[in-house]
Amino acid sequence: MTGVKHMKWWGWGVEGVAFNPDNKPKLAPFVLDAVGLDLSSTPTPPISFDDLDVPAPQLPNSLQDDLVEAVGETYVHTDDMDRVVHTYGKSLRDLIRIRANILPRVPDVVVYPSDEDQVRKVVDVARKAGAVLIPFGGGSNISGSLEPRANESRAVISLDMGRMNRVLDIDEDAQLARIQAGTLGPDVEEQLNAQGWTMGHFPDSFTHSTVGGWAATRSSGMQSDKYGDIADIIRGLRVVQPDHTTVIRPLPSTATGPSVREMLIGSEGRLGVITEVTAQVHRLPEHRVIQAYLFADWPSGLAAMREIAASDASPSVTRISDANETGFSFATQKESTGASKYVTEGLMKFLELRGWDLSQLCLSFIGYEGSKTHVSMDKAIVDKIVKKHKGIGIGTGPGQMYDQKKFDTPYIRDFLLDRGAMGDVSETAAPWSRLQEVYDNTVAAARAAYDQIGVKGWVMCHLSHSYHSGACLYFTFAYVADEQQDTIEQYDTVKRAIQQSFIDHGGTLSHHHAVGTEHSPWLEQDISAGGVAMMQGVFDAVDPKASLNPGKIIPE
Amino acid sequence: MTGVKHMKWWGWGVEGVAFNPDNKPKLAPFVLDAVGLDLSSTPTPPISFDDLDVPAPQLPNSLQDDLVEAVGETYVHTDDMDRVVHTYGKSLRDLIRIRANILPRVPDVVVYPSDEDQVRKVVDVARKAGAVLIPFGGGSNISGSLEPRANESRAVISLDMGRMNRVLDIDEDAQLARIQAGTLGPDVEEQLNAQGWTMGHFPDSFTHSTVGGWAATRSSGMQSDKYGDIADIIRGLRVVQPDHTTVIRPLPSTATGPSVREMLIGSEGRLGVITEVTAQVHRLPEHRVIQAYLFADWPSGLAAMREIAASDASPSVTRISDANETGFSFATQKESTGASKYVTEGLMKFLELRGWDLSQLCLSFIGYEGSKTHVSMDKAIVDKIVKKHKGIGIGTGPGQMYDQKKFDTPYIRDFLLDRGAMGDVSETAAPWSRLQEVYDNTVAAARAAYDQIGVKGWVMCHLSHSYHSGACLYFTFAYVADEQQDTIEQYDTVKRAIQQSFIDHGGTLSHHHAVGTEHSPWLEQDISAGGVAMMQGVFDAVDPKASLNPGKIIPE
Repeated sequence: MTGVKHMKWWGWGVEGVAFNPDNKPKLAPFVLDAVGLDLSSTPTPPISFDDLDVPAPQLPNSLQDDLVEAVGETYVHTDDMDRVVHTYGKSLRDLIRIRANILPRVPDVVVYPSDEDQVRKVVDVARKAGAVLIPFGGGSNISGSLEPRANESRAVISLDMGRMNRVLDIDEDAQLARIQAGTLGPDVEEQLNAQGWTMGHFPDSFTHSTVGGWAATRSSGMQSDKYGDIADIIRGLRVVQPDHTTVIRPLPSTATGPSVREMLIGSEGRLGVITEVTAQVHRLPEHRVIQAYLFADWPSGLAAMREIAASDASPSVTRISDANETGFSFATQKESTGASKYVTEGLMKFLELRGWDLSQLCLSFIGYEGSKTHVSMDKAIVDKIVKKHKGIGIGTGPGQMYDQKKFDTPYIRDFLLDRGAMGDVSETAAPWSRLQEVYDNTVAAARAAYDQIGVKGWVMCHLSHSYHSGACLYFTFAYVADEQQDTIEQYDTVKRAIQQSFIDHGGTLSHHHAVGTEHSPWLEQDISAGGVAMMQGVFDAVDPKASLNPGKIIPE
Repeated sequence: MTGVKHMKWWGWGVEGVAFNPDNKPKLAPFVLDAVGLDLSSTPTPPISFDDLDVPAPQLPNSLQDDLVEAVGETYVHTDDMDRVVHTYGKSLRDLIRIRANILPRVPDVVVYPSDEDQVRKVVDVARKAGAVLIPFGGGSNISGSLEPRANESRAVISLDMGRMNRVLDIDEDAQLARIQAGTLGPDVEEQLNAQGWTMGHFPDSFTHSTVGGWAATRSSGMQSDKYGDIADIIRGLRVVQPDHTTVIRPLPSTATGPSVREMLIGSEGRLGVITEVTAQVHRLPEHRVIQAYLFADWPSGLAAMREIAASDASPSVTRISDANETGFSFATQKESTGASKYVTEGLMKFLELRGWDLSQLCLSFIGYEGSKTHVSMDKAIVDKIVKKHKGIGIGTGPGQMYDQKKFDTPYIRDFLLDRGAMGDVSETAAPWSRLQEVYDNTVAAARAAYDQIGVKGWVMCHLSHSYHSGACLYFTFAYVADEQQDTIEQYDTVKRAIQQSFIDHGGTLSHHHAVGTEHSPWLEQDISAGGVAMMQGVFDAVDPKASLNPGKIIPE
């Protein structure tokens, strides 16, 4: 036993936990209306593990021996389960493929090093053997950053960082913590919280992603407005590469030419194995509030978010859902009874009397952190802006609910897949001046794609992660697959339309999900051919034989 | 006439403006005591231009013809004055060399393109001719980033960006401005201010540096606590490279792998010619105050700055001078008379009665910006922290003075050189937990270096640019050169001791002055051998023949 826990081989999260439609009376009619799916139909469970065709490992004995020498026999695994778990991340494409028994190439071996010395040995052994090395954190990636190339003829080693899971020390004066790269989100926070600190980094994948994975994919957490993106948070790194162990010392800022720190962040395993980061940490805030607001429509909500970003206020979270996502939120709520039912009904009546079209309602969450005075000052600024844009505050109840449930959303994809429906996400970031354009065109592009493949589809969106000059738009889309067509091709048609719309209207291919293989076709359109050439130059300098997670970021 | 104005060929700033010692009665005794220099001695003016030995241009006729074709005859200069102006930046080493008639290699030609198309033509022409190309902004660089290699056998073209000096447009919703790279600081602000905006970027070199130069050297302005470093401010860039014109679109954040934006920022001409940036701009603040404080000693001042950085307050400036720099500030003040004299004397008496050792006094400036409420909230938080560390507020007078005079400091180096004294600066950044260590050891290292070369020397320091995890320490050092020794060698002994101390105690080789040739010997110690190899990979990918400002950043 390695002591490292993994997610379900076939889906998101912990075995035994699933999306629960019970006691959500509005859900079934909502889903039927949105995508024509009847939730009362009998679900088809995923394929059984025994029915998978797992290719046998192609592992030379000498390589196996060297790996055992490097990390110990207990930590070298070639069994089918461990190899399948390390084959894919958790993108919709991954879930579809594994359910469809599509496993053209799985890693030949999984190793679990205990420390940086063992990582160095594995890197050296892989190099000597001419093998491919793919670093693996929590396995939550949804951009295709983890899979071996289908036609890879070399031996493939998946290097699981799960045993390197400790906060090594906290520098209280500098507010910096040294953390091993394999530490999962909850373990980071538990170890920091015990000493009164937080990293403040809470991506949707938090429960099942690691600090090294965050660094390798340019992750961003839902409180990034206050704590920054991972690229801001991580000040120092240690990275084991074939020729070097590159050490970026923790510095608040520096003028040492092109930023090597910013090359390693986002490198998705192509520049070596990140073994340790030094990250900014903060004292746990005295107060923390998530306030909910309602806006009459999306444009007025967007305008309010923009104005908050330009104001003196510094909230920790700014988030607004479009009308569709707001409708979805209401549909997934538990049945309200008693007083709360009357409050909700009364509120809706009030809004109608105000002249609002309830079908256009947009729900927003703004988070505040700090001293009581700071929180109330920021809230006063935000409230004034909300009022100017005709929004209204509806208290902290919905925000508390959101805060508790925020990590559960990914479970819904497996629930839908059991019922033949595809649900997925695509996100971008763009300047404030172009967000409405990105939004309008992306919604239209998704609908056109649904028409093209002849399905009834759904698309919804929220804005989150505000910056001075723009914000992230996060789209969720869903449809019932047409069984007469190739499932992957249908998915590609929709996904492609959305990604191309991002690029065509001033957005990036991804704000925080990374490039991998899923988004690499848009890389050149995003950063231009010269940018791709520069990136290739770094990859070639570190890894001329393309042995480190090849095929990711830059398309082949 | 090109319409582009340059600094003095022999020194800092505008011809006719110089440091003025008059009406500063405390200055002469202070300087005599600090470095043993008698200010009443007769100064030696710099060498006359006619006495310089300027090498003749080595410019093939075909190259000259092609350059004329590219930018027009008016904008191709081979006269000695223009070539000398474009040979060096304004480091102390540069000033010493030009006064000593040391000009081993000057550019063969200076060209002034009017737009990106002309830059493209110049880059193509240079490539065809196998010539070296060195982009030139305001010429204020003090890290040796501008000079041709002494042994350069190829033709050297200095590409002066001075004609590309306009703010092209302001995106009010996104708070982004497109600005041509050759625009000088005052021109940036004048054009932005006219429409109610500011970039908020005010480096010491502001008057004589350009937005392209800021990008190329990772500049940081004195209000970086609020507005960010230039790497935060610049969201998009256009860069003309041999094979590509790389375009980084303005994005608030993105997850497109290793950051190409962060490779171009800090590239010091080695990755091509930055022609345009898209930068964050802000509405001019309603209120702006710089408040002065006094602390009993450096450690308590440092502790207060650290606590301010960790607090809910978000000041625009945090700055504190050590006792020596505080003494220097007082010595360079105009003679106070009447009421203000009595106020100052009264204050000092009050502090002595409080038990303060006045020789340890540290002067601090904290800047506040925003609405009246925001400013007073932030000030309340800071005042409480200052009080906790036994500091006292002394009003806004000294801050106003500092604000008005902040760009005049570099003039003093020429004043000192006329009198045989060397004055220079070295700056670093380090985590809060190591700043005292960096400080103590750097002061000791400078003093040991003075002893080694047998001179009476002075070193003083301030902290500025606070971040969550650390801050910048900015050292100024001065001594009277021993005429029996090589002036450059003496300087190297002192400079080397200071730089090595930075690295040895957790600091970086430079916080915002860049690498160039001055700091490149410490690059590998700062970012490790692997980091240097990655950087070299980017340089080689863009410029395999090392024609773009060769010899900078990575030592040869």
